[in-house]
Amino acid sequence: MAVTADVVVAGGGVIGSAIAWRAAAAGLDVVLVDPEHGDAASLVAAGMLAPVSEALFGEGALLRVNLLALERFGPFAAELEEVTGHRVGLRREGTLAIAYDPGDYAALMRLTAFRRSAGLEAEELDSRACRKLESFLTPDVHGGVLFAGDWSVDNRRYAAALREAMAAAKVRVARDRVTGVLAQDGRARGVTLADGGEISSARVVVATGCGTSAVAGLPAPLRAAVRPVKGQLLRLRHPDGMPPVITHTIRATVRGADVYLVPRADGEVIVGATQEERGPDRTVTAGAVHDLLHDAMSVLPVTSELILAETCAGLRPGTPDNGPIVGGFGVGGLLLATGHYRNGILMSPVTADAIAACLTGQPPAAEWEPFTPARFAGGEGRS
Amino acid sequence: MAVTADVVVAGGGVIGSAIAWRAAAAGLDVVLVDPEHGDAASLVAAGMLAPVSEALFGEGALLRVNLLALERFGPFAAELEEVTGHRVGLRREGTLAIAYDPGDYAALMRLTAFRRSAGLEAEELDSRACRKLESFLTPDVHGGVLFAGDWSVDNRRYAAALREAMAAAKVRVARDRVTGVLAQDGRARGVTLADGGEISSARVVVATGCGTSAVAGLPAPLRAAVRPVKGQLLRLRHPDGMPPVITHTIRATVRGADVYLVPRADGEVIVGATQEERGPDRTVTAGAVHDLLHDAMSVLPVTSELILAETCAGLRPGTPDNGPIVGGFGVGGLLLATGHYRNGILMSPVTADAIAACLTGQPPAAEWEPFTPARFAGGEGRS
Repeated sequence: MAVTADVVVAGGGVIGSAIAWRAAAAGLDVVLVDPEHGDAASLVAAGMLAPVSEALFGEGALLRVNLLALERFGPFAAELEEVTGHRVGLRREGTLAIAYDPGDYAALMRLTAFRRSAGLEAEELDSRACRKLESFLTPDVHGGVLFAGDWSVDNRRYAAALREAMAAAKVRVARDRVTGVLAQDGRARGVTLADGGEISSARVVVATGCGTSAVAGLPAPLRAAVRPVKGQLLRLRHPDGMPPVITHTIRATVRGADVYLVPRADGEVIVGATQEERGPDRTVTAGAVHDLLHDAMSVLPVTSELILAETCAGLRPGTPDNGPIVGGFGVGGLLLATGHYRNGILMSPVTADAIAACLTGQPPAAEWEPFTPARFAGGEGRS
Repeated sequence: MAVTADVVVAGGGVIGSAIAWRAAAAGLDVVLVDPEHGDAASLVAAGMLAPVSEALFGEGALLRVNLLALERFGPFAAELEEVTGHRVGLRREGTLAIAYDPGDYAALMRLTAFRRSAGLEAEELDSRACRKLESFLTPDVHGGVLFAGDWSVDNRRYAAALREAMAAAKVRVARDRVTGVLAQDGRARGVTLADGGEISSARVVVATGCGTSAVAGLPAPLRAAVRPVKGQLLRLRHPDGMPPVITHTIRATVRGADVYLVPRADGEVIVGATQEERGPDRTVTAGAVHDLLHDAMSVLPVTSELILAETCAGLRPGTPDNGPIVGGFGVGGLLLATGHYRNGILMSPVTADAIAACLTGQPPAAEWEPFTPARFAGGEGRS
């Protein structure tokens, strides 16, 4: 018996889930296809919502879409909390960027000047002022910058709330894997599944993250554009009775190495993350755990007293220009929402908005212009 | 309905299990009482069988019983393997003690002179000779000593084999906890259990490790003599296709800090261990994991490439003189086998021999003389 739907969403990470929720809320009949239902990448994430403290030279277009994403995140999270009755752990304390030594400080100052030139808010702090904000920082810290607008969210609560919101909106979930997109006469007509079945649908959204390269029917250059970038991180926990050691997200550069510490309301502190080009490998390595702990303890020595509750590794869907791939590219009804790299959680609400707009015949926000699939689809995609 | 037995053994770690097996093999009807059946302490252990490389100044009596223990371990393990049909992972490659810097080397030389004066075998090696034995050692290693007689066993396989041997010997296992020892007219008559029941038995063996302080009916000074000493360790694993990085047990001193690496036939490498006086706390801390990895990577940089498969913490039953507590102390039929501190696995065969001797009216080996419970039992125990 053939399954049919208004929209098939391939991939059940936060991107696919947010899209499925918004599409169903807009009145469409949605099937979400996901082998895991709650993907590993968003479970491993730290949940930083940090367009400002992540803004890098030469990535102005990405910054603009990230700023839009942050603006949208608050209302989206509020609606999610209202629909589900669960808090998602949004924290608005801001992000404190820390430079460990003078070299780290010089690099931070160059980035801060660039971020200010883009109109972003940044408050320079000397070592003492840093420690006034976070009293457990080592006095060896050279200085820092407060990015008050950069927040965080509890990624696991957020992903769980999205699953609940989807269920409430009557999204049907198929525990399977999309193996290919079906098209005829330049229009999408459904997907094929790993179990051998098909789903018929005139609209297909591919939100498969690192799995995008395995989806048949997409142009080869587009499939090749998404690669896994391994990230290892640690979940620490306060021993019973110890008060929270930090209140802000701390992003430190320790002799050139980046480490972040993200506090959670429930007493967890996430420490991350490596960036490794190792294909689909998801093992946790002794060296990465050592380096993360070493760098975290360098700026916040009390880290050594925390409990190491979990070590994990995930795969971020990276692209050649570090930007996401969102929108259509010439096959009617076929949309992509993948390649969000380090910003999947932050961008999930605006991505869902953009895809919902496409599905209902509206134009997505202008900030998405540079991130259409066409830039990677090659001649094949433009046909 | 009252349960009765020839012998009740309280505690199901390797000590209690070895005793129960040998007692049952000697024809006695044995009940082993254990809340966990397979205790945490022996699961966390590294399985070093290392009387020589562990011998310290002033612990001559302990060295003698440990040497006896190692002599007995081979035949005991062989019998265990024969009875169960499972290998326990005994490795006879020897232990390579490594000194990282000249200070570490001077300390190692002092210990080596002492060990030699006790008649022990020790081969001094320069840095190059160390690397000839273990090619992945850093060239920075100052030097080392090979203790060819110090072996290791896979503690988890060993504990599992003991459980199987017990079952084959018809030991009855009660999943409960001994709360107290019952005695009348200076003779044991059974034990009380946490679930409220009792077991009647004229012979009781208390092998409760760190739980000894909670056993009512023992003299207070004896209960107070056993304290938990926390040990944290790591289980690393080779990535697929990587050949073994070490073949010997490596015990390194890195700027005064001790770390060991113990290879397993199945590709695991155990890295340990902290020694912490923290009561019953069994959390894994960020600082301990960092320090173990740091010290291991200092001597064997390739450690960073291994997979961090598991972090764990256990409690060793320590005593004021670091020696075990084995034998009787004035209450007829009541025997103790506890306080084995760092050497529970190594000593389990000889402890089982000693207790089996006591149970069948034979004298235990003379090496046990200094380790009777009487030394801690105080006036109460001698009554």
